[in-house]
Amino acid sequence: MSILIICPNRESKPWLDDLTKVDPSIEYQIWPNVTSKDKVTFALTWQHPEGVFNDYPNLKCICSMGAGVDNLLRDPYLPESVPIVRLVDPGLAQAMFEYVCSSALFYVQNTALYQEQQAKKIWLEQPTKSLSETTIGIMGLGKIGEHCATQLSQLGFKVRGWSRNLKKINGVTSFAGNDQLLEFAKGTNILVCLLPLTEELTGILNLRLFKSLAEDACLINVARGAHLNEDDLIEALETNVLSCAFLDVFIQEPLPLEHVFWNNKKIHMTPHSSSITNTQAVAPQIINNYRLMCNSKPLLNQVNVKQGY
Amino acid sequence: MSILIICPNRESKPWLDDLTKVDPSIEYQIWPNVTSKDKVTFALTWQHPEGVFNDYPNLKCICSMGAGVDNLLRDPYLPESVPIVRLVDPGLAQAMFEYVCSSALFYVQNTALYQEQQAKKIWLEQPTKSLSETTIGIMGLGKIGEHCATQLSQLGFKVRGWSRNLKKINGVTSFAGNDQLLEFAKGTNILVCLLPLTEELTGILNLRLFKSLAEDACLINVARGAHLNEDDLIEALETNVLSCAFLDVFIQEPLPLEHVFWNNKKIHMTPHSSSITNTQAVAPQIINNYRLMCNSKPLLNQVNVKQGY
Repeated sequence: MSILIICPNRESKPWLDDLTKVDPSIEYQIWPNVTSKDKVTFALTWQHPEGVFNDYPNLKCICSMGAGVDNLLRDPYLPESVPIVRLVDPGLAQAMFEYVCSSALFYVQNTALYQEQQAKKIWLEQPTKSLSETTIGIMGLGKIGEHCATQLSQLGFKVRGWSRNLKKINGVTSFAGNDQLLEFAKGTNILVCLLPLTEELTGILNLRLFKSLAEDACLINVARGAHLNEDDLIEALETNVLSCAFLDVFIQEPLPLEHVFWNNKKIHMTPHSSSITNTQAVAPQIINNYRLMCNSKPLLNQVNVKQGY
Repeated sequence: MSILIICPNRESKPWLDDLTKVDPSIEYQIWPNVTSKDKVTFALTWQHPEGVFNDYPNLKCICSMGAGVDNLLRDPYLPESVPIVRLVDPGLAQAMFEYVCSSALFYVQNTALYQEQQAKKIWLEQPTKSLSETTIGIMGLGKIGEHCATQLSQLGFKVRGWSRNLKKINGVTSFAGNDQLLEFAKGTNILVCLLPLTEELTGILNLRLFKSLAEDACLINVARGAHLNEDDLIEALETNVLSCAFLDVFIQEPLPLEHVFWNNKKIHMTPHSSSITNTQAVAPQIINNYRLMCNSKPLLNQVNVKQGY
């Protein structure tokens, strides 16, 4: 029995090293150099080639290398009977919070305008927003969203959250479902997207939603590029419906050189770097699920395929 | 009896309006349009003309419009027998924390480098520092310094503080006096200056101190321009002793157009705007001290002139 690592667009070595440290007795195989396909019972994967899992007749579990599984579920040849699990990395939630917090402060402190003024040698005080008069609205209250919401609230922001089902989180005003989406948006100064990517949530960051936000609002998208309607964002920025946007994810990654986002002064970009899974931190969790699988016990962090996360 | 407002480089109207709201029965006079000098018993001031207080024979209290009194104490003709008080604005401490926090996150998230990359259309992940592996060293643990230290520690930074006398603050490692300055600096990634400006603290932010910090450290100066040896900062940035600096205060303000700081890519400047006293928030405190003075009772937030703060 062996664990297959299959991540064509990512270095496999750090995963192999950290898994081996946790359990050197397991045999690890790295795709595409697989010598014995029959032995593979567990696959650890990121951006796998479509249909590849059907090569492994004894596969009993597929584990995503990240928190998101949208890429996995997009494969029409995904074996239906094999359970899918994802990683829950507390460090990842904290890293995401640090990214969101940094972007939110950049916005309330009017940093971009001060940078422009410095370039032009202009000494002029600009209005800033205090945290206590700023409302952050978080879309998606899963493990990462809840952590961000709690931390931002403790820091002093007014925080509200929106999710499929109503969540109760200390210090956070909660909204749920499509019926309450515009109510949630109303009065939100900083909109943060931390949703899973499902079909119904594709393009949810659109002009209608942006127009419901508070004046001069800002968008932070750290979920998936496809949550955002890119044309709507450009229109919202041009018409001052939104004042700026912080984007870490894009429909096409790396962002093509000809894309209009690169040169837009109101868009602050990072290359899908807001939070990278720490292989060392999650290796024990992967081995744990592998052992549970071997013993036919219930798996941890199993994905509801129908729900999409 | 009347309160004199004397702030030649600042709008007096907001002060007059907010004081009048708290106590309309008091007579307020605005310098230089003073009709009855004899009546003035209390002066509220910011950047007063040297020697001006000697025009008021019945002056019993001088109140600074801010937390700092260095400008006041620099006047060689300051009447020795008149007590000086300063303002303690909790909003000011919070605003200062928000500025420092924003700068610190800009630094740990490698924001400037990502901005450069975006301008050049470069898609490349850069290392960032997590809060838990970043040490912030705060110089000055007065009311503002203590508030910043506490909040930054709660946010997840490692925090240490340095002050004249050893302070005990939850979650903060404390150092005191010149003997422990370099020990305090050692291992500090982000150095924050929140000291009062006294003669012995002038130029304390110098090359010797910068060289004691952790590698690639950053400086945040939100105290007074004269704390910083400006030539040493330029040298430290050029030789990569420091990686960047966030400056809100300068020896000469507004910063002269020919000053080298404007064009330095490693310096992030704001025009002494990190925290402005909220007149509405402090008006009751001023009236309170006025009444205590009228009743010959001990004043609040009195300055130790010899100590300088």
